[in-house]
Amino acid sequence: LQEKYPSLEIKTLLGNPEAHLQNKRFVDQDLNRQFSEDKLLRNVDEEGMPLTVEELRAQELNEILGPKFHVAPQTDVVVDLHSTTSNMGLCIIIPEGDVVMAQAAAYVLHACGGEHGTCDVDTTARILMHSIPDRKLRPTLSSTGLHGFTIEVGPVPQGVLRHDAVEKTQRSVDLLLEFLHKRNEYGSEAMLQELQEIYGDTSGRVPCYRSAKAKREGEISGKIRWPSDPDNPNFPNVLIHKSLQDRDFHKIKRGDPLFVNYDGSYVNYEGSHGEQVYLIFVNEGGYYYESSGTGIGVAVKAEYDLETATLHEPLAEYEYSSS
Amino acid sequence: LQEKYPSLEIKTLLGNPEAHLQNKRFVDQDLNRQFSEDKLLRNVDEEGMPLTVEELRAQELNEILGPKFHVAPQTDVVVDLHSTTSNMGLCIIIPEGDVVMAQAAAYVLHACGGEHGTCDVDTTARILMHSIPDRKLRPTLSSTGLHGFTIEVGPVPQGVLRHDAVEKTQRSVDLLLEFLHKRNEYGSEAMLQELQEIYGDTSGRVPCYRSAKAKREGEISGKIRWPSDPDNPNFPNVLIHKSLQDRDFHKIKRGDPLFVNYDGSYVNYEGSHGEQVYLIFVNEGGYYYESSGTGIGVAVKAEYDLETATLHEPLAEYEYSSS
Repeated sequence: LQEKYPSLEIKTLLGNPEAHLQNKRFVDQDLNRQFSEDKLLRNVDEEGMPLTVEELRAQELNEILGPKFHVAPQTDVVVDLHSTTSNMGLCIIIPEGDVVMAQAAAYVLHACGGEHGTCDVDTTARILMHSIPDRKLRPTLSSTGLHGFTIEVGPVPQGVLRHDAVEKTQRSVDLLLEFLHKRNEYGSEAMLQELQEIYGDTSGRVPCYRSAKAKREGEISGKIRWPSDPDNPNFPNVLIHKSLQDRDFHKIKRGDPLFVNYDGSYVNYEGSHGEQVYLIFVNEGGYYYESSGTGIGVAVKAEYDLETATLHEPLAEYEYSSS
Repeated sequence: LQEKYPSLEIKTLLGNPEAHLQNKRFVDQDLNRQFSEDKLLRNVDEEGMPLTVEELRAQELNEILGPKFHVAPQTDVVVDLHSTTSNMGLCIIIPEGDVVMAQAAAYVLHACGGEHGTCDVDTTARILMHSIPDRKLRPTLSSTGLHGFTIEVGPVPQGVLRHDAVEKTQRSVDLLLEFLHKRNEYGSEAMLQELQEIYGDTSGRVPCYRSAKAKREGEISGKIRWPSDPDNPNFPNVLIHKSLQDRDFHKIKRGDPLFVNYDGSYVNYEGSHGEQVYLIFVNEGGYYYESSGTGIGVAVKAEYDLETATLHEPLAEYEYSSS
C-alpha cells in the first residue's frame, strides 16, 4: 500500500501485543478506553498502584502516534481496525464535525456498496457517526491523532481469524488510503466535487447511523443495558432474544422481544430510546465486560452533510433506497 | 427435567468454574484432554510441579462422576455440553461400540431433524461417531462414566451466549433424557423396536460421520493441520479460505482451496485424507491451541448399526436423502 499511495506515509502497529500473545481481548482492561487525559498523563493509578498492561500500552501508542494533547500530533489520521462478535458487517465509525473523515467515509461507503453504494461485492458498509466532536474528550485510540477513523468488522469470534473479515477490512483500508492519496494529489475541492456528484440525489447528505438518545431517566444514550449476574458483573443475567441474533442494523419497535430470562420469560423493548430504533453491536463479546459497558448498542438512522460533517436526523422514518 | 423424567437421577455440574469466572476457554490447559489415566492419578506433573487448574478440576470431576478406572463408576451416562465457534449446528459425538449411546443418538437425531430427521424446527442434527471404542483410552470428560454423550453446538463465539444455541442444547438434552427414561420404563427391547421402525428404510443403519483416516505419512487422522506462526504456536500462519467458512459438513475434493497464505496465495486440499472429505470444526477457536491440536476436522460419511453400534462406510459416496 505504501508503494500504491506514495503521497502517504503509512505506519502499522499492533494495538495490544501482550493480549495478542495471550489470545485474549485484553489482559487487564479494555485498551480502547485508556486514552483519556488523566490516564495518559499519570504514572500510577488512583490508588498509587502500577498501571495496567493496557494503560502502559496506551501511553506508548500515544507517544508514537500523538501526543494527543499536543497542538500538532505526529499522525494526521489514526485508523483503528476492530473486529466484533456481532454481525455488523463493515461499519465505519467517525466523529461528528470532522469534515475530512466524513468525506473519507462517504467515499468508502460508496465504493464498498451497501445501502447507498454501487459496488457488486457483498461488503455492505455502513457509517456510524458519533457525536462527541472534540477528540480530546474521547477515550479511544483513534483520538490520539488529528483525525480518527475506526473500522469495525463482524461477525468474528474472539480468538479466531476469518478470511472474509480480513478481506473486508483490507478493502476498506485500501479505499480510505485511496481517498487520502487522491486528496493529497488533487486537493480537497476536487474530492468534495467528486462526492457531491455521487451524493447529488440526496442533496449532498450521506446516510449514516448515530447513537440513540436515552428517552428515560436511568438509561444511558447509545446502549440498552442488561442486568448482570449478581455474583459476576461480567456475566449477563439474560440472553439476547434469538430474533435479534445476527441482525445488527435491524429495526425494533416498542413491544418487540429483547431479552430472555433464564426461566424462559421474555423482556420486551419498552421504548427506552424511542419508539423505533436500530440495534447495533448485538451480542458483542466486549460488551459482556462491565468496564466496557454491558448491553446492546442502539442507534437511529440519520444523515450528515458532506461539507460540514454535521448530523441531521431525517424528519420521518426515512428509508434509504438500497441502490 | 428431574420431575419430567422420574426414573433418572440428574446431576448438573459446571465443567470449569474458574475459566467461567475469567470468561476464558481454559485457565492453563484444555480441560477436555485431562482425563487420561496418568493425569487423573498423579499429584504433581512430570517435572514435579503442582498440577494445573484443569488437571485438578479433572480429578475433582472424576471423583464426582467416576471414578473412571473403577469397575462401576457412579455415573451411568455423562453428558458433556460444548459450544464451538464453528458452524456445526447440533452435533452429537458418541463412541463406536456403545450400543446404548448409539441408540440414544439415533433417537435424538430423528426427533431433532436433519439429514435423516422429521422434525420441522431448524435444529439440523448430525452424529459423529469416533472409533476409540475403549473409554479408558479417551482423555475426555465423557469417558469418566459408563457411557458418554457429547453435544456440540455452534456457531458460538467464545465468551458469548447465544439464545438459539442454548435452545438447541436444551432440546437435545431433553430428547436424550426422554430416551433414557423411556428405556428405563419400557426396556431396551422396546426402544430398539421403536428405532428399527424409524430406521427401517436404511435396514437399521443410522447415518453419521466418522473421522477421516490419514492417507499419507506425516498426517494425522481426523485433522488437517495448519502451519503455525514460528513465534507463536497458537497463532496460525494461514487463514481458512472463505469458501469453507461456516460450511461445516460441506464436501471438498482434491484441488479445492483450503488455506490462504498471508501473501494472498492459496493452499489447496491435496487429498491428504481421501479424494472427497467433509470438513468439520471449521475455524474452531479451541483448535488454535497447539495443545488441543491445531487444524480443521475432517470426516467421511458413514453409518452405524443400531444393534451393534459398529461403523460401516457406505460403499460409494452415498448421499442420504434429506427427508
